[in-house]
Amino acid sequence: MSSSYGQNYRFTIFGQSHSAAVGVVIEGVLAGERIDAEALQRFLDRRAPGRSELATARKEADVPEFVSGLKDGVTCGAPLAVLLRNTDARSADYAPFAHTPRPGHADYTASVKYRGHQDAAGGGHFSGRLTAPLCVAGGIALQLLQREGIRVFARLQAVGGVWDTCELTEPVSEKNFPVVDEEAGRWMRERILMARSAGDSVGGVVECRVDGLPAGLGDPIFDGMENRIAAAVFGIPAVKGLEFGEGFRLAEMSGSEANDPFILEGERVSTRSNNCGGILGGITDGMPLVFRAAFKPTPSISVPQDTVDLEKRCETAITVSGRHDPCVALRAVPVVEAAAAAAVYDALLEERKNRRMEWN
Amino acid sequence: MSSSYGQNYRFTIFGQSHSAAVGVVIEGVLAGERIDAEALQRFLDRRAPGRSELATARKEADVPEFVSGLKDGVTCGAPLAVLLRNTDARSADYAPFAHTPRPGHADYTASVKYRGHQDAAGGGHFSGRLTAPLCVAGGIALQLLQREGIRVFARLQAVGGVWDTCELTEPVSEKNFPVVDEEAGRWMRERILMARSAGDSVGGVVECRVDGLPAGLGDPIFDGMENRIAAAVFGIPAVKGLEFGEGFRLAEMSGSEANDPFILEGERVSTRSNNCGGILGGITDGMPLVFRAAFKPTPSISVPQDTVDLEKRCETAITVSGRHDPCVALRAVPVVEAAAAAAVYDALLEERKNRRMEWN
Amino acid sequence: MSSSYGQNYRFTIFGQSHSAAVGVVIEGVLAGERIDAEALQRFLDRRAPGRSELATARKEADVPEFVSGLKDGVTCGAPLAVLLRNTDARSADYAPFAHTPRPGHADYTASVKYRGHQDAAGGGHFSGRLTAPLCVAGGIALQLLQREGIRVFARLQAVGGVWDTCELTEPVSEKNFPVVDEEAGRWMRERILMARSAGDSVGGVVECRVDGLPAGLGDPIFDGMENRIAAAVFGIPAVKGLEFGEGFRLAEMSGSEANDPFILEGERVSTRSNNCGGILGGITDGMPLVFRAAFKPTPSISVPQDTVDLEKRCETAITVSGRHDPCVALRAVPVVEAAAAAAVYDALLEERKNRRMEWN
Amino acid sequence: MSSSYGQNYRFTIFGQSHSAAVGVVIEGVLAGERIDAEALQRFLDRRAPGRSELATARKEADVPEFVSGLKDGVTCGAPLAVLLRNTDARSADYAPFAHTPRPGHADYTASVKYRGHQDAAGGGHFSGRLTAPLCVAGGIALQLLQREGIRVFARLQAVGGVWDTCELTEPVSEKNFPVVDEEAGRWMRERILMARSAGDSVGGVVECRVDGLPAGLGDPIFDGMENRIAAAVFGIPAVKGLEFGEGFRLAEMSGSEANDPFILEGERVSTRSNNCGGILGGITDGMPLVFRAAFKPTPSISVPQDTVDLEKRCETAITVSGRHDPCVALRAVPVVEAAAAAAVYDALLEERKNRRMEWN
Repeated sequence: MSSSYGQNYRFTIFGQSHSAAVGVVIEGVLAGERIDAEALQRFLDRRAPGRSELATARKEADVPEFVSGLKDGVTCGAPLAVLLRNTDARSADYAPFAHTPRPGHADYTASVKYRGHQDAAGGGHFSGRLTAPLCVAGGIALQLLQREGIRVFARLQAVGGVWDTCELTEPVSEKNFPVVDEEAGRWMRERILMARSAGDSVGGVVECRVDGLPAGLGDPIFDGMENRIAAAVFGIPAVKGLEFGEGFRLAEMSGSEANDPFILEGERVSTRSNNCGGILGGITDGMPLVFRAAFKPTPSISVPQDTVDLEKRCETAITVSGRHDPCVALRAVPVVEAAAAAAVYDALLEERKNRRMEWN
Repeated sequence: MSSSYGQNYRFTIFGQSHSAAVGVVIEGVLAGERIDAEALQRFLDRRAPGRSELATARKEADVPEFVSGLKDGVTCGAPLAVLLRNTDARSADYAPFAHTPRPGHADYTASVKYRGHQDAAGGGHFSGRLTAPLCVAGGIALQLLQREGIRVFARLQAVGGVWDTCELTEPVSEKNFPVVDEEAGRWMRERILMARSAGDSVGGVVECRVDGLPAGLGDPIFDGMENRIAAAVFGIPAVKGLEFGEGFRLAEMSGSEANDPFILEGERVSTRSNNCGGILGGITDGMPLVFRAAFKPTPSISVPQDTVDLEKRCETAITVSGRHDPCVALRAVPVVEAAAAAAVYDALLEERKNRRMEWN
Repeated sequence: MSSSYGQNYRFTIFGQSHSAAVGVVIEGVLAGERIDAEALQRFLDRRAPGRSELATARKEADVPEFVSGLKDGVTCGAPLAVLLRNTDARSADYAPFAHTPRPGHADYTASVKYRGHQDAAGGGHFSGRLTAPLCVAGGIALQLLQREGIRVFARLQAVGGVWDTCELTEPVSEKNFPVVDEEAGRWMRERILMARSAGDSVGGVVECRVDGLPAGLGDPIFDGMENRIAAAVFGIPAVKGLEFGEGFRLAEMSGSEANDPFILEGERVSTRSNNCGGILGGITDGMPLVFRAAFKPTPSISVPQDTVDLEKRCETAITVSGRHDPCVALRAVPVVEAAAAAAVYDALLEERKNRRMEWN
Repeated sequence: MSSSYGQNYRFTIFGQSHSAAVGVVIEGVLAGERIDAEALQRFLDRRAPGRSELATARKEADVPEFVSGLKDGVTCGAPLAVLLRNTDARSADYAPFAHTPRPGHADYTASVKYRGHQDAAGGGHFSGRLTAPLCVAGGIALQLLQREGIRVFARLQAVGGVWDTCELTEPVSEKNFPVVDEEAGRWMRERILMARSAGDSVGGVVECRVDGLPAGLGDPIFDGMENRIAAAVFGIPAVKGLEFGEGFRLAEMSGSEANDPFILEGERVSTRSNNCGGILGGITDGMPLVFRAAFKPTPSISVPQDTVDLEKRCETAITVSGRHDPCVALRAVPVVEAAAAAAVYDALLEERKNRRMEWN
């Protein structure tokens, strides 16, 4: 355990890279919510493989199959169970790695944990493929949040040291390459193609912003917005760093620089700057919630790498062929949105408990 | 909710800065474990206020009072309840802030969330004072981990842009100023005193390392070691960033640089580098687990700051006097150890379920 | 929420009576466990409908489809996702009840809770059909328990006031009619057929016994074996009562009658009687764990019943035709075993955390 | 684990019979709720020992000490921590039972579970003393429910086979002996005194009723009202049976007798009978929620009993002197109310999540 997330909007992700399907079961969706199937499909398509020269060639339709929880496209209060079929799995590609773990992957740690019984093909349950059902859970949360006036949107902010330095204020998901500054985007693209042609890969940073949040979401100490988002975002493979607002830069500042002064915007309390990323004491302050996730480079690279043979107990070298993304951060942009949406929606349901209501 | 952490080593933190006491209730400690009271006190003393010119002048004995769960100093299987009395609280210091929220603090967000009913004095439940019971829970976990051959230790790695660039390989907690490179330490100290004399504060970075971990701890997707540690560490006030291994630097690397090649050290599988911070796929690989937390500067500063008067609905300015740490990161070093220890011990108990055992 | 059970062996049940499938996702199964598909199928067949004149005529193959978590029939450590297709659903049968709730069913309460959005067909998520995936989760737990020397078996103990007064000491699941005293069984059968021919139904009692338990399973206060089993067994539709050991009869006894004296059986501590049903202070004492669940009569009956029209807001009457069990307790026998097995296995995994282990 | 209850109104009970104090930490109470200290004290006094010849002579003030979570008697949103000091503990009374477990008690099972490290004095964490903090958590829930128009009240329904056959429609807590039919009450009293003078004890049944519930509380399958109440009520020591509505009697009925026909009472949907105890499909139907808990006789009796000496591994006999209730069911009446209130309030908070709200 555990492939489950959430206390109120609670879901469990299942499946392996090469199992019959991957999927998710979701509890806690209110009854009477229409799921916009087209919007969900468009969202899933942003993550889906095989759509571009910058992504893996594995081709999956990723059409969600609702097994339960819907009646005429509307939630009925019962858990939602959703499947995404695995159709283009090539397990043979992975046979060589059964005893020679790929550096940077979970092959070795999974083989220790599961004493050799793990499903090694394609990374099994540790595969990036499992971000597809996360996008189903998050994509539904996105729709539900939108109905409350809350928008979640992310962008690729950096690739291998190339940064998009423009501020993210509006969604860029309509774009082919999800950046604000298109010039920077061209350089990032170049960087990815360069890595690809070298049989190598490159890391990146995804920035995410949540707009329209009321003040007061999030809970003290271990259920602050930072904790909640971290618990979801570190569930995305390859994420190794996370910061809120100015994050690590705050560690270099003085208090007089870092503190965000309160101001009035008409009747509304606001802050002049947003160094805290919209979160104070774990609770939203009504400003945009902003965070950044650091992705390591795709560990699958086709240059030779040193490893060990777990059976023969000797050192050896491998080359990982197969089909891989040269930069996971790129396709991770909607995945980060999904993780954020799930975390925010869960906090929003939590907050409802704090409001007295009239029974009738 | 929620001031609770953990699934197996589960604890709930209670108290406000100026309540009669702060404390913690812990479930899941095995029966028959001796709690070393002296070692625990030494650990708490590292965090306790009023010990140095670099820390707040608030003076608290912080002697843990075990209300339950112990019999002759040994755990009896029942929950541990521990109190730490608040003796040096000066609520009058906080009266002015009831309606003029201090920038950078939870005053405003708590007042929205609790509709004016929050205990504002000293930051209430959002105060750094609540890290004392966290240190009780973590300090006990540290002892239990030590008995399994696992050591958790942290250092102050940076203050306001001054970095300790030496590698952390051994505990530095015996030192007066917890750094590896003492020259860097002197500069950091200088930086803190400078902030203090300016009525200002400064941010910092704490690095933590866990040695002696077996491979195989941690669980897939949402219960990976990163998720578990993040859920605990973001429970420390002022933490705004977290990274594992090379963290954000991985986003600038290529895969061939970032991947840690597997090697054999005698019979033992190891890695040549440790860019991943000892975690692959959320699971420990047997190398040291390494992470860094970014702390924002103490928000309490005595220079004038802009804020709003929530009652009169007008803009105004305040000066925060009271007694404060000029750099929370310094006293946070043992707190980060405590959070890490709690997370690691929780994962270790989880792993026990995966081992078949003999009943008798 | 919540259709989830368990802390260690954790599963979520999904599906409605007439959705594409019902199913279950299970977390916490150890890697390396072979699932005996034939044994599981035999177990599911005991619950499956359409097998006898005493049960509903709805015909479902109930062949579990493992979507994930298995590799060559052996668990790989990832969550198990299992589907059971719904093939013989006749939603038209239920159209009349959309606004005229059937007495004794969840039609009315679900319509209030879900504000009219519930999936009313066949009782939706409240249908007895959902006990099929519970039997998958429990049937797997049964196999895992068996490998630890623990047996779980139940019998039909009473139907409409007719009791099987013989003691349950061995499984009766091989029998066509799961009772100990076959003479009593014939009377029960008669009672069921009588109800059926009258278009009526009848209640019953199922008794369950768990053999081979070590002493020491279960936890204090809210996680005692009684709490754990109750939380699972009340998840079976129609259960309205539950008692452990002598249960309600203990309320009529004196302490000197009720207390079970400790004795030695060779080296082993045992008790002379077992009035407590093998549980003291919530913890197993090494004797057989015994409990009884009371099932109300199937609420679906074909005699006319008074109800209200929720749309027209007037009183009216209905007759429930459709296909129904005249006595749900009969087919519930394996379901009770499943619920008990899940609860016991969850407690067993919990107990593993209390045993120190050697890492290697 | 686990001495914790609840998902929304979540509390952890701590303490042993002879520890410095027993207590409870509660999360999830809304901010701004005034705790009526006098009403809470009156409620605790109903459970407190040493008040009558029918109860143990142990004398405890049971005045709750609020360590945190309150500001001027009003909840501030932070966890409530409450202590009840143990002042009249006589551990010496229990020394003889360290190795000769008392029949019917948790002495033996706790010694197995905790490998001899349990706090045996007074039953430790398994003592009825732990129902005092449960009454704090439940007593607060009672006040919060009352503000929503919901009343929870119980009565002693049977003692050793003597039944109060009158219906419970109004609270009887003002009475000295909490029964409806005072004639029956006199017989019960007689039965208890008889047991007491014989150095014996006697079991009983407590019935509880919740009035004013809206329809729609409770959740499907494992979070139905029955599951929620069972999970709390089996947390009370000595409870061995539980039934809802007509409970075990439903197992003897036909469907046409058992089903509660729906009727209209003015505009309101109601049922003609209430055999289901106000719960259909786990969800409240707006009728009174009714359940009954069976209590075994107090296991502590002063007549000689057979047991074993765990050290010498031989059979022996003991006499339990000490101070004990001759009938735990009597003092358990408010405890059952407390458990029910906690469960109902938790379900009510859960339901709030299902109602869309306006942010402002």
